[in-house]
Amino acid sequence: MLSGKARGRISARTEEAVRAAAAELGYRPNVAARALRTGVARSVALVVPDITNPFFGRVLRGAQRAAQEASYTVVLVDIGNNRAWEAASVEALLAGPADGLLLFEADLPPGTSEHAIQIEMAPGGEFPVVRLDVEAGVDHALDHLLELGHTKIGHVASNFDAPTFDLRAARIAARLGPVPTVMAPFTFEGAKVAAAAMLDEDVTAVFCDDDILAGGLYLAARERGVSIPGDLSVVGFDDLDFARVLAPPLTTVAVDAEGLGALAFSALAADLAGESVPPEQVMPVSLTVRESTAPPA
Amino acid sequence: MLSGKARGRISARTEEAVRAAAAELGYRPNVAARALRTGVARSVALVVPDITNPFFGRVLRGAQRAAQEASYTVVLVDIGNNRAWEAASVEALLAGPADGLLLFEADLPPGTSEHAIQIEMAPGGEFPVVRLDVEAGVDHALDHLLELGHTKIGHVASNFDAPTFDLRAARIAARLGPVPTVMAPFTFEGAKVAAAAMLDEDVTAVFCDDDILAGGLYLAARERGVSIPGDLSVVGFDDLDFARVLAPPLTTVAVDAEGLGALAFSALAADLAGESVPPEQVMPVSLTVRESTAPPA
Repeated sequence: MLSGKARGRISARTEEAVRAAAAELGYRPNVAARALRTGVARSVALVVPDITNPFFGRVLRGAQRAAQEASYTVVLVDIGNNRAWEAASVEALLAGPADGLLLFEADLPPGTSEHAIQIEMAPGGEFPVVRLDVEAGVDHALDHLLELGHTKIGHVASNFDAPTFDLRAARIAARLGPVPTVMAPFTFEGAKVAAAAMLDEDVTAVFCDDDILAGGLYLAARERGVSIPGDLSVVGFDDLDFARVLAPPLTTVAVDAEGLGALAFSALAADLAGESVPPEQVMPVSLTVRESTAPPA
Repeated sequence: MLSGKARGRISARTEEAVRAAAAELGYRPNVAARALRTGVARSVALVVPDITNPFFGRVLRGAQRAAQEASYTVVLVDIGNNRAWEAASVEALLAGPADGLLLFEADLPPGTSEHAIQIEMAPGGEFPVVRLDVEAGVDHALDHLLELGHTKIGHVASNFDAPTFDLRAARIAARLGPVPTVMAPFTFEGAKVAAAAMLDEDVTAVFCDDDILAGGLYLAARERGVSIPGDLSVVGFDDLDFARVLAPPLTTVAVDAEGLGALAFSALAADLAGESVPPEQVMPVSLTVRESTAPPA
């Protein structure tokens, strides 16, 4: 037989027929299916919107660490903020050998029978969700700015459409009502151009949806000679590695991206093992206060 | 038959035997093999040492763009700077559905018959190599520092063992002879601790193997009150996104990481198509001069 193990149990003629038919049909040994019996590493796939954002590298790293302990490998599919490419990638994954899927802000076609966990999505869909406590993150940031005495607060918001950014905007509106808002893309240069408009607004502090957007605001402020935090306090979100090498170091909502990846893998592993998985698991976040926030001048 | 297409060409009894044997052996339709005949997306795998370093996200993005045009998907395997895990991941990949492998600083077991391209490895091995012109990058950086008048130049070197870093060290030695050197890890905090020792050396300029190491040197200099570039000129390598938001913006060797990924995919696609592939292809690099370098005080 193709793996040699069937020898003696199936006639030579049938074996030859299987071999020929398998070759004709394009069949090859499936590593995941075989691994279930041999104990060799199995695999899950993680789909992320933009691997060039270091946040997602940390999510992958966390999922990997948890997966290694369970003898799984994790393969990553980056959809490059491209919804059309997301659909093609997910379709390819569904036909592939992954035992299950971790979907960051991604959906599956309705009715698929895959094992999947969704990350940073709204609960109530087909699959269990793990997500960060984004509302608490916004609260921590706003509480900090309000305690410093700021009453004129702006919002540099992501122009990438995702539930996590809707949650930020909704929480800001619930806490402060309408605030000056600019939409910015996820590159320093693009965010700089967008965030420059915020410097024309009557604000003393700015909440940024992400550290990359805050970095863009730093660049805009530097060009205009606006001092952070002397003229403007800035808060980011994610506590990416570079936040602490900015000058001044960035006050930002710290999230455990590796923990989020690990939690997502654990939920998927439980699902694959036939255990019940809570429909929603929420990871706590905290505020890292550095030097980009101060009382208004 | 399992795909239905063999009906009428193979007897019902043989079909049943194939179906039962395939199930027993854990065979499932292989998407890559099938895709070769149906035109559906095929896949290649990219193995990288550390996806939390944004450089590798850009390599993936470049490979992806080239792959999309050729109707391939790219899956990523991150080995987390862990050579043992690298071996397990590569083993899993070899049994998987990938049509070919892009190996960044990774090796395959000897004698495997895979289609593979190696990235940033020394040429002369079993597989074609694509790499950056690291020697030219070092030359650009040193020429710039020498032209500014620096004669006391230090080296903050990567403590991760890889051919690309050996090339940097060899080129510095060839140009300058022995120089003060410290070995630093690839985190800002770890690099800060390691790079602090460089501030005790009698140097007026420092070449860093990577922008992350330069970021660590910035942190150490800030703690000590050492002014960049007033007291110390700093050059990085890679031109990662955050290099331009550092204060002062970092002078660094700009490399086309996306182009490197795209070139690697193109080489693999040519190999898969049976075309000949040059044993070594080298990507040019350039120097981006920003504000972290100035004449010595």
